[in-house]
Amino acid sequence: MTLQKSNSLNPHVSVDCVIFGFDKGQLQVLLIKRGGKDEALALPGDLIRDDENLDEAASRVLYELTGLRNIFLEQLRAFGDPERLEANSDIQWLNSVREEPQARVITIAYYAIVKPGKLHPKPSSFASEVKWMPVLELPMLAFDHSVILSQALHHLAASLKKEPLLAFEMLPRKFTLRQIQKLYEEVLNKNIDKRNFRKKLQTAGMLIPLDEKEVGVSHKPARFYQFDKKKIKTKGWL
Amino acid sequence: MTLQKSNSLNPHVSVDCVIFGFDKGQLQVLLIKRGGKDEALALPGDLIRDDENLDEAASRVLYELTGLRNIFLEQLRAFGDPERLEANSDIQWLNSVREEPQARVITIAYYAIVKPGKLHPKPSSFASEVKWMPVLELPMLAFDHSVILSQALHHLAASLKKEPLLAFEMLPRKFTLRQIQKLYEEVLNKNIDKRNFRKKLQTAGMLIPLDEKEVGVSHKPARFYQFDKKKIKTKGWL
Repeated sequence: MTLQKSNSLNPHVSVDCVIFGFDKGQLQVLLIKRGGKDEALALPGDLIRDDENLDEAASRVLYELTGLRNIFLEQLRAFGDPERLEANSDIQWLNSVREEPQARVITIAYYAIVKPGKLHPKPSSFASEVKWMPVLELPMLAFDHSVILSQALHHLAASLKKEPLLAFEMLPRKFTLRQIQKLYEEVLNKNIDKRNFRKKLQTAGMLIPLDEKEVGVSHKPARFYQFDKKKIKTKGWL
Repeated sequence: MTLQKSNSLNPHVSVDCVIFGFDKGQLQVLLIKRGGKDEALALPGDLIRDDENLDEAASRVLYELTGLRNIFLEQLRAFGDPERLEANSDIQWLNSVREEPQARVITIAYYAIVKPGKLHPKPSSFASEVKWMPVLELPMLAFDHSVILSQALHHLAASLKKEPLLAFEMLPRKFTLRQIQKLYEEVLNKNIDKRNFRKKLQTAGMLIPLDEKEVGVSHKPARFYQFDKKKIKTKGWL
């Protein structure tokens, strides 16, 4: 006996992708406008297919809605509140696109960290638009996506505190001290004392100063730095 | 419009619980024997109900199968390989207990760390037996439960390396240096150099020596220690 396989959508499980990037001094997240009357903002997400695993589903769905490929997506966690799809606007939208709009859907959230400048997302499938939006200035998202985003942000903040390597993944190859502080302020959503922060950066000894400064800025040009990859290790006490 | 609610089982999503404990010098996991011909060992797990969220489902399922309540369960991740339920013995068992045995089931794994000595699990529902088994001496488990267990173990090992507080949750209130080393050896599944390990423990400065030694042992009685809770903090570089 084998289970029946098909390319059909599984109406009970979906994936949603939280794609973070740091750009223009702000923490950004990639959102779509779902087509339809309300044009609500949502994370790129959709039902899984019956013949694919969850990781495959996340990559496919992200590609279908935004055109982005080869993004390293990690599973965040599952979200399964029985009422997660019950706002009226969400029900209307589901009725217009789903074959079993009343099915309870558990979603598996994925997240990724990317450099927005290098990517060129464009909307397709049911996305009428795809765009980067500053995380700290967002309206409510569709479904329970504000909850998912906030948990992803919490996870990102906890990771960045423990693993400075993440900052390296989010910043350009060379950056100023102002930029790295701004990154931490955005992700942790709090102001950081400049003097203290620079002292800690120095103690951590992860940065290499470059013989190069900003050009064409109105303020005093700041020095550029690079991460010292050799010094960046995630180490426990053992 | 509201979604239809009921107490019925949702045949598409399950929860599985990985309950770890350290006892008799070994890392143990709580397993059930599922009733039926093959009596395969499995993690305590079952379908969610349509009216409960995932955390609630995990607590209920653990209670129904093992009688254990008030265990702090944390979500590990979702497992959704399309072939995760396709071993012949698993299909036979599913056919004997499930109303929709062919449905693809995504499972959300939960894990907890407990002190086995304080718990008194007893089997019910479809569990014919419930018992602690040493993690490093297990046979293959039912379904994809060996995969789930191995990911949970990986997670536990990574956490224990970063957060010594976990060792505190796994050990008795007072313990010997031999016991804490054995705990690390079991979780990391490798031998640890005794001298090195003790040096690191000392550097980390988390232990308070007690004026108390083992009694009635055949070897030289070892001193007991306690964790210094004030010193145990999970800190990043910032």
